[in-house]
Amino acid sequence: MKKNHGKIYGLGVGPGDPELITLKALNILKAVPVVFIPVSSEGKESYAFGIVERHLDLARQKRINLLFPMKRDQGTLVPYWENAVEEILRVAEQGIDSAFITEGDPFFYSTFIYLHARLLEKVPEDRLEIVPGVTSFCASASAAMFPIVNGEAKLAVLPAAYGKDHVEDALEKFDTVVFLKVHKSLPFLLDTIEKMGRGDKFVYVERCGAAGERIIRNAGELRKAQPNYFSLLIVKK
Amino acid sequence: MKKNHGKIYGLGVGPGDPELITLKALNILKAVPVVFIPVSSEGKESYAFGIVERHLDLARQKRINLLFPMKRDQGTLVPYWENAVEEILRVAEQGIDSAFITEGDPFFYSTFIYLHARLLEKVPEDRLEIVPGVTSFCASASAAMFPIVNGEAKLAVLPAAYGKDHVEDALEKFDTVVFLKVHKSLPFLLDTIEKMGRGDKFVYVERCGAAGERIIRNAGELRKAQPNYFSLLIVKK
Repeated sequence: MKKNHGKIYGLGVGPGDPELITLKALNILKAVPVVFIPVSSEGKESYAFGIVERHLDLARQKRINLLFPMKRDQGTLVPYWENAVEEILRVAEQGIDSAFITEGDPFFYSTFIYLHARLLEKVPEDRLEIVPGVTSFCASASAAMFPIVNGEAKLAVLPAAYGKDHVEDALEKFDTVVFLKVHKSLPFLLDTIEKMGRGDKFVYVERCGAAGERIIRNAGELRKAQPNYFSLLIVKK
Repeated sequence: MKKNHGKIYGLGVGPGDPELITLKALNILKAVPVVFIPVSSEGKESYAFGIVERHLDLARQKRINLLFPMKRDQGTLVPYWENAVEEILRVAEQGIDSAFITEGDPFFYSTFIYLHARLLEKVPEDRLEIVPGVTSFCASASAAMFPIVNGEAKLAVLPAAYGKDHVEDALEKFDTVVFLKVHKSLPFLLDTIEKMGRGDKFVYVERCGAAGERIIRNAGELRKAQPNYFSLLIVKK
């Protein structure tokens, strides 16, 4: 392992509002010569890039896009993760520091977790650093003035794919349930929530803090909305 | 309601590292004439104040301590919440902006939630703003290089008081369980985790990012540790 191995940062840049980046992430972001940006398809805007764009100086800093198509099947994604790791290592092995940016937090439902597992095997531990970020569910709660959990309350967080049983079980046993990326399951979730008498105890938030933010508290209105990928639902008892 | 009602901010200042405050919270913190600091007893250092101290200019800004004793019984705490709300309103009604600081996120197991419910009734909505923060569990995961959840994984977060059944049920049904403020329940949690074969699948973190941070991955070592109030355990399948 070369002594002048570049440092690799996994940077959480927060949920959408460029001001919700931490001082630590901002300082690293401004200092690194190379920034890796996850994109879901060539030519499509990156949500994470939109958050940091104003903080970068692209005349001085190199932007490298890394492609991660939107696919549920993890097997299909392995070559993309491996390619990304190769690209990141190629830069680090030249002694150049770099940052991989990720919306929200790098260890909370992020593609970076898959890269991290592979980087850990190949990079000296002190050459890898993770900087946490504000999660979308915390930012959504603040924006909607909808406290998440207090006192002895229990929280469950469920990502996009959940069976019917899981949903009802979580709603019954937990004081607050956060459903992430609900764009495909919204009608089913709303049916369940209403059936369980929680039709007035939720808030829906999409693109929190970014352009096009929406906050919806009414089930009827939400049924008519075209939900966005960056969406979540917080439901209380 | 006076037109020149001061703005009241609920500021998440992050988990412990002063650099893990957001740009937004920092800018507000530096601008407000009055900063409200939660303290658990007169004379005892405030964890939240320790996080922001370096960002404040106490020659120019007024620091007001608000007392919230450490008690489980919420009834006992009501007069303290009411007193805090009165103090905050007294400042706001003079047209002075103020910020109540809270470690982590203001809507995630924070005393501020109790104040918020009362302030909402008395303050025009546009005079109250919440700024989310990095939670201790995200920061702990980053510090310990221990990813929290990815893909379709489900997360449960349980605060300090939990029955035996809840613990086993959560560990069985969720991919990752975060136990918060584990200082009193650590022996019981370790027994359960080991019994369920997860003795090598956890990380314990206390005072993440602050002075005296500790990260422990070994059950034997953890049993001998004197755990701190600002402690958590992340356990995986």
